[in-house]
Amino acid sequence: MDIGIVGLGLIGSSFARAVKKYTDHTVAGWDIDPNVLSAALADKAVDVAGEEAASGCGIVLVCLFPGDAVRFIEDHEFPHIVCDVCGVKSFLADRLSGKVGGYVGLHPMAGREVSGYGAGSADLFRGASLIVAKDGHTKDAHIGEIRALAEKIGFGRIIETDPKTHDRVIAYTSQLAHVVSSAYVKSAAAGEYVGYSAGSFADLTRVARLDPKMWTELFLENKENLAAEIDNLMEHLAQYRDALKAEDAKVLSRLLGEGRDKKDMLDGLLKD
Amino acid sequence: MDIGIVGLGLIGSSFARAVKKYTDHTVAGWDIDPNVLSAALADKAVDVAGEEAASGCGIVLVCLFPGDAVRFIEDHEFPHIVCDVCGVKSFLADRLSGKVGGYVGLHPMAGREVSGYGAGSADLFRGASLIVAKDGHTKDAHIGEIRALAEKIGFGRIIETDPKTHDRVIAYTSQLAHVVSSAYVKSAAAGEYVGYSAGSFADLTRVARLDPKMWTELFLENKENLAAEIDNLMEHLAQYRDALKAEDAKVLSRLLGEGRDKKDMLDGLLKD
Repeated sequence: MDIGIVGLGLIGSSFARAVKKYTDHTVAGWDIDPNVLSAALADKAVDVAGEEAASGCGIVLVCLFPGDAVRFIEDHEFPHIVCDVCGVKSFLADRLSGKVGGYVGLHPMAGREVSGYGAGSADLFRGASLIVAKDGHTKDAHIGEIRALAEKIGFGRIIETDPKTHDRVIAYTSQLAHVVSSAYVKSAAAGEYVGYSAGSFADLTRVARLDPKMWTELFLENKENLAAEIDNLMEHLAQYRDALKAEDAKVLSRLLGEGRDKKDMLDGLLKD
Repeated sequence: MDIGIVGLGLIGSSFARAVKKYTDHTVAGWDIDPNVLSAALADKAVDVAGEEAASGCGIVLVCLFPGDAVRFIEDHEFPHIVCDVCGVKSFLADRLSGKVGGYVGLHPMAGREVSGYGAGSADLFRGASLIVAKDGHTKDAHIGEIRALAEKIGFGRIIETDPKTHDRVIAYTSQLAHVVSSAYVKSAAAGEYVGYSAGSFADLTRVARLDPKMWTELFLENKENLAAEIDNLMEHLAQYRDALKAEDAKVLSRLLGEGRDKKDMLDGLLKD
């Protein structure tokens, strides 16, 4: 089986490097930037470069932003399996599932605060979770082939869900975290933070370093879910603020206790 | 110089262990819980146990919650220097500075998600920041003695500021982070998070595991600053949500770009 990889940025080049490092598959790669393609060939991250070569493989991973991924997949023929790897899934499934044979939507839960070919790594996915968003059109045999490849390149957990569930949960676990980090750094007090944190400030603001173009697209393609999560968080924040302003120690302590108990419960889920 | 430590919880027992490990000072410790005192003597975390022995030392660190710290310091005589180590500073300075000779307010920027004597460590403060909140009553010679001790036990940075500045900045860097984490876990989607995050969810929720009693007291003693920071964060969050609901890619991209640029600037400050 040959693996085709379209788009050799952080995620695409990491897939290429991982397939080369951990499997015997041949990799055919394609990127709009000829310098990236040359580098990938020189690094042996891909064996063959070419748009037709990549899209003609048995498993094709289209590692482009969502709109570009839809256009690329609609514009090409694929012999067997074609996957996108975007952070939203309904937007893709609505346009591709049942219309493009062999389509399987994926979301690898891995990333970095830097992007592009040079940021890729054969080990980016080691231990990470791979989400497979399936619907009535997705073939079990295709999922089996994706699972086999994902296990070889080191994913630690493979989750099968449907596009709607993916988008609802990801709005909370990932997209909201990026919005909060981005908003958190905007306080006037931020410039004075050095020496004033034991780690919580770094944790809260880490993912503020993001690619605005990519995240704007992802957010707008999942806007109802994300807006609902922002509203929900704001409602909870208002409860703490109101208790503070009312100097209500009992309510404040209850709110904090409920948060601690919920956090304990959530950490417990990881052990199941 | 003997070091007195009153309250042998996470912070107090860490100070005791650090002084014993890294200096030649004798440690006199005191705790309301006789089992803790026995354990501290058995572990050689303290050399001598006793309320008068501890409060009679040349440097006394009162490692109690703010209200208890004020009461203990008001109720005792100290021969030279007495410090609290609370996460708010104006509440203490307003009650003690200029009234208790040798008072110096400290805030060690170190902690853990667990508390109590057993959670302490001689290395809790290695590389951490120690904030010294001084005002017109604080003697430079006392700060010099605190600095010398802090450097010996491994603090990586010592910052001198005034109580008001401390409380304003800490409301943002630490207290707001705890409020956001506590609120963040309360989404209905939280129970489905396993497999749906590459790390941002863990980062955003880490400090939700907190001691509700301690943080309720700290928050109420800094309520104007903290309420203002919550309001400010909510105003920023509303901007992202409004841009989403209006499907305004230009505004959303600008908001995210401003956040990324601010984060880059803030990270740059650490290198100065």
